[in-house]
Amino acid sequence: MNDVRASESIVLAAGLNPAYEARLRIRNQQWQGNTAGMAPGYVQGNLMILPKELANDFLLFCQRNPQPCPILAVSEPGNPMIPALGQDLDIRTDIPRYRVWKDGVMVDEPFDINSVWRDDLVSFLLGCSFSFEQALIEAGIPMRHIDCGSNVPMYRTNIQTDPAGVFHGPMVVSMRPMKPADAVRAVQVTSRFPRVHGAPVHIGLPHMIGIEDLYKPDFGDPVEVKDDELPVFWACGVTPQSVAMAARPPFCITHSPGAMLITDLLNHRLASF
Amino acid sequence: MNDVRASESIVLAAGLNPAYEARLRIRNQQWQGNTAGMAPGYVQGNLMILPKELANDFLLFCQRNPQPCPILAVSEPGNPMIPALGQDLDIRTDIPRYRVWKDGVMVDEPFDINSVWRDDLVSFLLGCSFSFEQALIEAGIPMRHIDCGSNVPMYRTNIQTDPAGVFHGPMVVSMRPMKPADAVRAVQVTSRFPRVHGAPVHIGLPHMIGIEDLYKPDFGDPVEVKDDELPVFWACGVTPQSVAMAARPPFCITHSPGAMLITDLLNHRLASF
Repeated sequence: MNDVRASESIVLAAGLNPAYEARLRIRNQQWQGNTAGMAPGYVQGNLMILPKELANDFLLFCQRNPQPCPILAVSEPGNPMIPALGQDLDIRTDIPRYRVWKDGVMVDEPFDINSVWRDDLVSFLLGCSFSFEQALIEAGIPMRHIDCGSNVPMYRTNIQTDPAGVFHGPMVVSMRPMKPADAVRAVQVTSRFPRVHGAPVHIGLPHMIGIEDLYKPDFGDPVEVKDDELPVFWACGVTPQSVAMAARPPFCITHSPGAMLITDLLNHRLASF
Repeated sequence: MNDVRASESIVLAAGLNPAYEARLRIRNQQWQGNTAGMAPGYVQGNLMILPKELANDFLLFCQRNPQPCPILAVSEPGNPMIPALGQDLDIRTDIPRYRVWKDGVMVDEPFDINSVWRDDLVSFLLGCSFSFEQALIEAGIPMRHIDCGSNVPMYRTNIQTDPAGVFHGPMVVSMRPMKPADAVRAVQVTSRFPRVHGAPVHIGLPHMIGIEDLYKPDFGDPVEVKDDELPVFWACGVTPQSVAMAARPPFCITHSPGAMLITDLLNHRLASF
């Protein structure tokens, strides 16, 4: 706790960025819930921690599947600090809630992972749709699931990822209904953000990608698709999680859904042009 | 003819660009047909010549409707040379075939317009879909109408242009059927070319823009839209022509459909980034 208090003093003294402030609140266990809406404008990331012997395969899997698995950063083995993503960022404490998995089964959902940290663990931080949703909203495109206060609908598809080592499986996509002109604009906007899933992978014909019923998502909540709208599909960060779990690694750690890592990166700085 | 021969000698001596060579063949009336496929890689343009008293309104109309009316160049009144578009480019002779209109009615279809040229005429050159089709083909996206050897299907829509002076009317669009992933890529590719119609104006739901039957285009030829394809719609250069004709100007000149102006501009140089 002394470390935490020292960090807090730094924030108060220097007026540090809202992302660092949020991480310190989380580290101090003053916030244990979802991170949506916290530190607006800052990139939030999905976490996957694997033992070193699986990390190379997973890195290769992400390299081969950049749309569902856009890597923001990879840690050094055993090092919990990830300076590329933020000042004083400690992956063991700076996420509100974690999930600890053994042989593909969740065994704990702790608020920090100090007690299970190991010297062979490698942390992967992957981009998240929060970033491109900010860009879409700023472009004036309504987000149905946000307006409804629900989770975005997600679907397993018949699009196969490109396998690497033990990692393989279908791509999971998220869906946002849009008027056709907004769908065109959404392609333009999200194409600029390849590090957070980039452009849509599909528009308009869900049966072509193995989705039988839009109103029965595999994850998240259904949303209405109106007669004058097209369903627009993006590769989803649930893909690497479901692929990793299917490989039943002896040990791994993820964030708890919705409780993301808040980084010091600005969403706008992720734009490729 | 002496001028033409002198120009030809220049070409032969200096090995000038294929666009200039093509214009000299046309000027020399060695080619009187369509320009599709001539001087590949060079921008081709739609022509609209209006008397000066209508030119300001038409310029404003194009400014307000840049997707259907993307201006490549506007001449000085009475000056038939347009150096911004090409070396030694003479708008009176360098298009294979023209249409001369009086009060909105076509009265002649000559191979040059030397005899009807006037000191008050202003030439507008507008971008054409040939340019973005080259970019789409280079991106590996099939063009159904080209594969079928037919004209692209075009439709009057219920999308109203933004009027200016005497010029007003519905937008005309062209349609290309594509697989959904190709439609996403096509948005990316054509967004880079705002000077030749830019991104699609609509995808997937033709009834929303007033198109009742895709197989009955208002201009051009119908093409098949397969079950696994979406119809993708771009603003079309027929729009300014139909809008200008609807205003029944006392005098104007256009190119004959398919017989375009070949400029010295490279398609690749039109990319906005």
